[in-house]
Amino acid sequence: MLAPVAPGFRRIDADRLWERLMALARIGATPGGGVNRQALSNEEIGAWRLMIGWAEAAGLEPSTDAAGNLFLALPGVDRDAPPMLAGSHLDSQPGGGRFDGVYGVVAAFEALATLSERGVRPPQDIVCVAWMNEEGSRFAPGMMGSEAFAGVRALEGIRATRDADGVSVAQSLDALHAAFPALRRRPLGFVIRAYVEAHIEQGPVLEAEGRTIGVVTGIQGKKTFDIAIAGARGHAGTLDMADRRDALAAFARIAARLYEEIGGEDALVKFTIGRLTVEPNAPSVVPERVTVRIDLRHPDNAVLGRLGERLTVLCHTHAAPCVATVIPLVDAPSNGFDGELQDAIEQAAKSLGHPHMRILSAAGHDARHMAPLCPSAMIFIPCRDGVSHAEHEWAEPAHVAAGTDVLLRVLLPYAGVSST
Amino acid sequence: MLAPVAPGFRRIDADRLWERLMALARIGATPGGGVNRQALSNEEIGAWRLMIGWAEAAGLEPSTDAAGNLFLALPGVDRDAPPMLAGSHLDSQPGGGRFDGVYGVVAAFEALATLSERGVRPPQDIVCVAWMNEEGSRFAPGMMGSEAFAGVRALEGIRATRDADGVSVAQSLDALHAAFPALRRRPLGFVIRAYVEAHIEQGPVLEAEGRTIGVVTGIQGKKTFDIAIAGARGHAGTLDMADRRDALAAFARIAARLYEEIGGEDALVKFTIGRLTVEPNAPSVVPERVTVRIDLRHPDNAVLGRLGERLTVLCHTHAAPCVATVIPLVDAPSNGFDGELQDAIEQAAKSLGHPHMRILSAAGHDARHMAPLCPSAMIFIPCRDGVSHAEHEWAEPAHVAAGTDVLLRVLLPYAGVSST
Repeated sequence: MLAPVAPGFRRIDADRLWERLMALARIGATPGGGVNRQALSNEEIGAWRLMIGWAEAAGLEPSTDAAGNLFLALPGVDRDAPPMLAGSHLDSQPGGGRFDGVYGVVAAFEALATLSERGVRPPQDIVCVAWMNEEGSRFAPGMMGSEAFAGVRALEGIRATRDADGVSVAQSLDALHAAFPALRRRPLGFVIRAYVEAHIEQGPVLEAEGRTIGVVTGIQGKKTFDIAIAGARGHAGTLDMADRRDALAAFARIAARLYEEIGGEDALVKFTIGRLTVEPNAPSVVPERVTVRIDLRHPDNAVLGRLGERLTVLCHTHAAPCVATVIPLVDAPSNGFDGELQDAIEQAAKSLGHPHMRILSAAGHDARHMAPLCPSAMIFIPCRDGVSHAEHEWAEPAHVAAGTDVLLRVLLPYAGVSST
Repeated sequence: MLAPVAPGFRRIDADRLWERLMALARIGATPGGGVNRQALSNEEIGAWRLMIGWAEAAGLEPSTDAAGNLFLALPGVDRDAPPMLAGSHLDSQPGGGRFDGVYGVVAAFEALATLSERGVRPPQDIVCVAWMNEEGSRFAPGMMGSEAFAGVRALEGIRATRDADGVSVAQSLDALHAAFPALRRRPLGFVIRAYVEAHIEQGPVLEAEGRTIGVVTGIQGKKTFDIAIAGARGHAGTLDMADRRDALAAFARIAARLYEEIGGEDALVKFTIGRLTVEPNAPSVVPERVTVRIDLRHPDNAVLGRLGERLTVLCHTHAAPCVATVIPLVDAPSNGFDGELQDAIEQAAKSLGHPHMRILSAAGHDARHMAPLCPSAMIFIPCRDGVSHAEHEWAEPAHVAAGTDVLLRVLLPYAGVSST
């Protein structure tokens, strides 16, 4: 039997929540009002330091694991029972905003701090988690912490990954752990009872529909590829056009077709070439090599699979006289979230009076990797103009608080407190 | 009256010439057998140190000017009379070869050393010159030394140019001069009697025609442009394709048309996009900005002008929904070299028994900027497969010697020595 909910359990402290978010936004703040807090950077260490300080003040126990995930636990009666997890990530894109990732961590933290302050002792631990390197901008590809935790990717391979300056995850991860020598270590991949992640939508739907809460039904599928186009360098002033194997010319031909055929498939496809490098990238040298990262997403796994194959064919067909190599990287099918948790989120939004709707996540999230392990779900709040991964990314304080109130409501049964 | 030529004046020391070239190739040597000796770098300072040492041993007087050009003078009877100049440049492309530029400097040096050793005292100075930053790969655009000397570009603007690391020409130039504090300073733009530059062809014509010496008739016209394409960044997983202003997608559309229409104009056009930067260049962010450098060349000034205009129109036409800005940089029309000097080069090749032909230079050279100042000309030798700006760039030792013998012959009348 759950105890009936007391009034103080229903709402978090909206002002304190916002202050925490803005305090974290100052760590890695950019002149343009955004945040540059790369995975395993000094800025992320600073964010850990701040959150661990708050945790200790709020009676939450900090710990970490071999993958550099941060856990802040509200201790339960049975410390060995599988804990409930809620969170997201603290790292940002190079020119990212103040909400992507960090919102889900701070929302979980504030919900747990609220429970802790009310003297709640849940039947099992409830843990705020910050997964390591969700963004994948410094060390690619991302979601390293949740993938290592879920056993999707081996920690050894993750540790060997290097950033653009040649610094490895291993070096940076060891430095992070060394900065917090007293932190208890949890084993990688311990059993979880359930997982909930709050996040800004990173799209325009909730705003356009006038809804405060998105009950996320699942995450659209994603494939990424590295395409390397190999040609031959030469002198821009002397090498006849007919004799050239210009890697950038081949890229332009290929890319024009990809944007048209793959990017024009239907209204649901998302096709992006986000990163490109040219070698030697000198003004008067015919380019010898072009390497690009392709990001392809579609909610329908069959369509996604077909587009991935078509993409590969187009690269090979239009590369001549150069040679294209297509290396598949991420291959994450669309997944659906737990039905009961979706209902719980919807019920919480309804009882709090927040307009809500079911929505598919177009962006990938760490929750993708929790879903196969335990009942998992996500709560979305709107972001202005659907803009994310940009310095002017913005969420309204009222929406930030509403999403956290909903999260708190969803956690109450796991805290042994009735939400009715 | 010129004194008749003694046998020793007719030929340079081919082995020593080759050894000097290979000694310079070790300064900035790359693992792939090429050279990376950027303008005003420590490697170029090393090349100066080596050449100044050789000069002092050979009785040549080193000096410099405010633009960082290096002069090694065989002193003449009248030190105030306008000197004869011969040379090229010591800087290379990032993955350049062992001959582009440095060959013309070493050939001029070896010719002067030969005259000096024979005790020749010319009526006026004959000067070996190494022009600063011909390549323009570290500091763009290139030909800084010869343009500053010729008054084509102001030294102030040149000094303000910065490399990719933010280091200015001013800083690097001052460091170069500081490394040689005892070096005498010549005024910028002193009067020159004539100018001859030896160079590898950087094209396939001489090799295909089986000729050792190219009598260069002129340099094809060249235009360069910076194209900036401005869009808007967004999340690769959430921003609908219809709502995107993807700068890289706009580039692909524009570039595909440029390669086809401009690059396909005729058999003589040379169209290159050598350098490209993407911002923010992150895997899951829709690109906000693409900047490219375009290099366009054609021997016919009317065609070159028309193509430049067409290029600008194509950029604007195909940029939507992004915005393209076209910034014209270099605008160098085709130019012809001095007829009498061309005849002298041809005569020298003939009397030395080297197969020769008249040839238009497809590549730009510092000689372009000397031609308006004084009678100027160039001597080409073949390079294997026409390859240049590449680590495996290669010239046969016999051709290297032949070009230098021809240069020496052309210099003899300026040395007061009859070449008959």
